[in-house]
Formats: sequence, C-alpha cells, structure tokens
Amino acid sequence: MKTIIGVGLGLIGGSMLLSLKRFYQQAEFLGEDNNEDHLQQANDLNIVSRKAKDQDFKTADLVIVSIPVDTAPKLIEKLLDQVGTQTLVIDTGSTKAKLCEHLAKHPKRDQFMATHPIAGTEFSGPQAAFPSLFDHKTMIICEIEKTNLKLQQRAIQCFENMQMNLRYMNPVAHNKHMAYVSHLSHISSFMLGKTVIDKEENERNIFDLAGSGFESTVRLAKSNPATWTPIFKQNKTFVLEALSEYIHNLKNFEKVLEHDNFEQLYKDMNNTNIVKDILKGIKL
Amino acid sequence: MKTIIGVGLGLIGGSMLLSLKRFYQQAEFLGEDNNEDHLQQANDLNIVSRKAKDQDFKTADLVIVSIPVDTAPKLIEKLLDQVGTQTLVIDTGSTKAKLCEHLAKHPKRDQFMATHPIAGTEFSGPQAAFPSLFDHKTMIICEIEKTNLKLQQRAIQCFENMQMNLRYMNPVAHNKHMAYVSHLSHISSFMLGKTVIDKEENERNIFDLAGSGFESTVRLAKSNPATWTPIFKQNKTFVLEALSEYIHNLKNFEKVLEHDNFEQLYKDMNNTNIVKDILKGIKL
Repeated sequence: MKTIIGVGLGLIGGSMLLSLKRFYQQAEFLGEDNNEDHLQQANDLNIVSRKAKDQDFKTADLVIVSIPVDTAPKLIEKLLDQVGTQTLVIDTGSTKAKLCEHLAKHPKRDQFMATHPIAGTEFSGPQAAFPSLFDHKTMIICEIEKTNLKLQQRAIQCFENMQMNLRYMNPVAHNKHMAYVSHLSHISSFMLGKTVIDKEENERNIFDLAGSGFESTVRLAKSNPATWTPIFKQNKTFVLEALSEYIHNLKNFEKVLEHDNFEQLYKDMNNTNIVKDILKGIKL
Repeated sequence: MKTIIGVGLGLIGGSMLLSLKRFYQQAEFLGEDNNEDHLQQANDLNIVSRKAKDQDFKTADLVIVSIPVDTAPKLIEKLLDQVGTQTLVIDTGSTKAKLCEHLAKHPKRDQFMATHPIAGTEFSGPQAAFPSLFDHKTMIICEIEKTNLKLQQRAIQCFENMQMNLRYMNPVAHNKHMAYVSHLSHISSFMLGKTVIDKEENERNIFDLAGSGFESTVRLAKSNPATWTPIFKQNKTFVLEALSEYIHNLKNFEKVLEHDNFEQLYKDMNNTNIVKDILKGIKL
C-alpha cells in the first residue's frame, strides 16, 4: 500500500495508523480530524506526516474512519462518493446497524467494510494511541459479503498482520451482543461513579477508603462522553433492553437481601462465579 | 514479638502473616483455620509453622482474626476470654459495627483492636496470600481509644512497618462509607456478570466479544460468596441504602435515554468523569 489515510485520529484511529506503520513502512500515512488540535498532535507524534487533501482520497489504498458513531454514516457516504475506484474504506465504530443500513444502496458499497475492533482503553485522543492496541484482539466484521473480494483481502491482510481474531456477524446481532458485553458495562460504571460521588461529598474519603475493587468497577466512568453519547443513542433499543434486565437483577438482589434470604444471595453470587472461567477465555 | 497467631488463613489472614514475617523474623508464626485444607496449605506454604494449641493463645503477643464477619463476634469474644493478659487481638473484617457492639462490654475489650485494611484481590485462600498486599494501603482503625495504649503501639508498629496509612473512624461511619465505596461495587459487578451470563447462552460469544472494559467491571464477580454473604447481611441497612440510590441513578439514566435527552446523558457522564482525578488519589 502506498497511501493510508486516517479520518479521526483519536485513540482508535491513531492506534490503527501506528499499528499499520509497523507493516507498511513504505506507505505514506495521512490524516484528517475535525479537531485541529488532534490533527496537530497526530503530526507531532508522527502518527501522520500531514493533513490529507481532497486529491489524496482519490489515490488512497485505505481510508480508516474512527469518529463518533452518529457522524459516521453521512461522512462515510460522502467519502465513498469521493474516493477512487481502488480505495477501501473501513470504519471502526462501536455500533454497526444504522451505518450498514445507511450505506446499503450506495453505488460504492463494495468498497466499504464495516468493522469493530474489540479493543480500547478509557483514555482518548491521539496521545492515548499506541501501536499494539489491536494485537491479538477480536475484530468483528459485518456483512463481509458486501465488500468486493480484492478489498476484503486487503483488509484481512491488515488484521492478520496484527494477529487479530476475525469474527463475522450481521450488524443487528453485533449491536445486540455489544449492548450486553460492552455498553451495559459503561452505564453500570458511570452510574456507580455517580452514586459514590453524590454521596461522598468529601472526596478525601473516596481516596482513602476505596480500594482496587472500586477502581476496577468505575474505570470505565473515565470514558469520553463525546464517544459514548452517540453509541447509546444509536443502540438505544438494545441498550434499554440490557439496562432493564440489569435493573431487574439489582432489584431482585435488593428484595432477596431485604427478606434476609441469605441462602439465595449466596447461590446467586456463586452461580455468577463462573465469570472466572469466562474471563480466562477473554483475549485481553 | 515472640508468637503471632493467625486465626483464619485465607487471602487476608495469610497475607498479614507473610507481611509480618518480613519484620519479625525471630517470631514463631502459628495458625488456626476451621478448613483443614487451608491449615495444611498454610503449612506447606510456610505461612505458619504449625497449628496453634490452646496454650499458645495464653502467651501469644498478637492474634490476627481474619474470618467471615458473621462468625467473628462470637469467636473473638471466646478468644479474648482465652488469651493471656499481654496478648493483643485484632480483626481485619470488612464490617465493624456489629462486632464492636458485641465486644463493647467484654472485660478484656482493651486487648482488642478493630481494624479494616483496604486491600484485597478477587482471589481467596492461603494460596492467594502474598506479603506485600497491605504495603502503602489504608488501614482503618475503629474505636482506637478503647484499646490499651501499650497494645495500640504494638499494632501501630506493625502497620507502620507495612507503611500503611492509618485512618480513624467510628464503626457505624465505617460501615456506611464501605457500603458505598466497596460493597456496592461488588453488587454492581455480580449483577452485571449475571445479566450477561443469563443472556449470552453461548459463552463463546462472551469470550470473543467482551473486551477489557467488561473484564474490569465484572472482576469483583469472581469474589467468594462465603465472604460476601455475611458482609451484606451485617451491613444490610447501609447496603440497601446505597443499592437503592444506585438503582435510582440507573433508572434515571434509562428515562433520560428513553426520552432521547442526549444533552442530559452527556452531562451526567461528563460530571462523572471527575472519577479520573479521584482514582489518581487512590493508593492501589
């Protein structure tokens, strides 16, 4: 590949470019970001060598879009209009249904691949990016059959370089699973943080009394609201379903505790201990 | 100190003994555990040199009790009856109000110190124990004034050896703070694990689709129900208060999302981002 462009140069987009730099050392890495500071930082950090011009999109081999999921559909539509016939456009957003629906009838749909790398940290921006973020992680690809074969191979070569584990799903199933295994964790964490902060007016108490357990459960409450608000918006139906089941389980715990049914409480926690085995299987 | 006895040789008790071995190399470390396997393991792991006999409690300098919080009050009462006049008994349990109340009128109350080290992992048993678990962590001491001065100094010397940060609280305030910064995290994590496991019948999906975010929020769901059921039981009132506020916040999030009030959603998450600064202050 000669030219790789990142549109959106935050944690995910920046890490994608840094990762690919290891395997395509001769390629030119260009970038675009509607946040001028991020573009400057990406430049300073050698993530990109300069801002991408309109002409660059005509000749680029690969355009990676990593922007909030609410702005992605229209922007990718415009990008597809603009790119040359040999360009592959991929996106890395955390929701897939609305995007795939929006692009379904685009004449260049076969130059697009909808992907979701299961990797991230609670930090954001180009300074949070690092080359190994995606190594050995899962990469979900939606509607692979809609991307033309040559461009499929180009994308898959990139992901195999990173030793990612490829999983194929339809966009709606993707969104439903993500509501449970990812989006709900963020809500649970944000609201746990809020509950404790509201109560402990004296932050000193949280510093001193909270241990690593609290730290780990509220880690995701550091996440960027500018990323997560659009995700909850786009995946509203499944997120509400997951949230309602979570609240139901918490209310059940509350009831069991209120009624001093400690045998049941023990049993519920004991059954959930199987997460031990599940977590061992997660590729972190 | 010549003789130090651990009663309960799990993660906390075992780590206390291993930690103290670094500073009291001449002392004899003895143990007791109602789980014979744990006693044997503690022996094999050189946490203790042998089982403590009745006579050992008469001459021990320090007895450290680390057992489930529901059995602690009566057992410590019995231990105090049994120990010699120079012995200090400390406990390390996660709840303090019922215990301090139970021992308030014991004739040897001044030989007892109620403590709670803010440290732990999601693992349990002697094999999970390690010497540095408490180094630089917070140690909460309740009703310090009720322990006699000489024995206070003995305990504090131990904690200062571990470079722990001492905090003094009354037992009821301790329980209330802990309901928020510790016990609630465990419930949130257990119920998140349950919600996802119930939904994802195919565990393979959880392995592949869950990332480090899920891993971190459900980490505490690996915790031992035999430890946590008695904690929730003993701290029922404050735990129910914290849980009810948590459910209230989750329902509010649900309502805000249902009504497409994304500005408010953003604001709520943004306000909670201050956990970033709070977590920086936590001594992990």
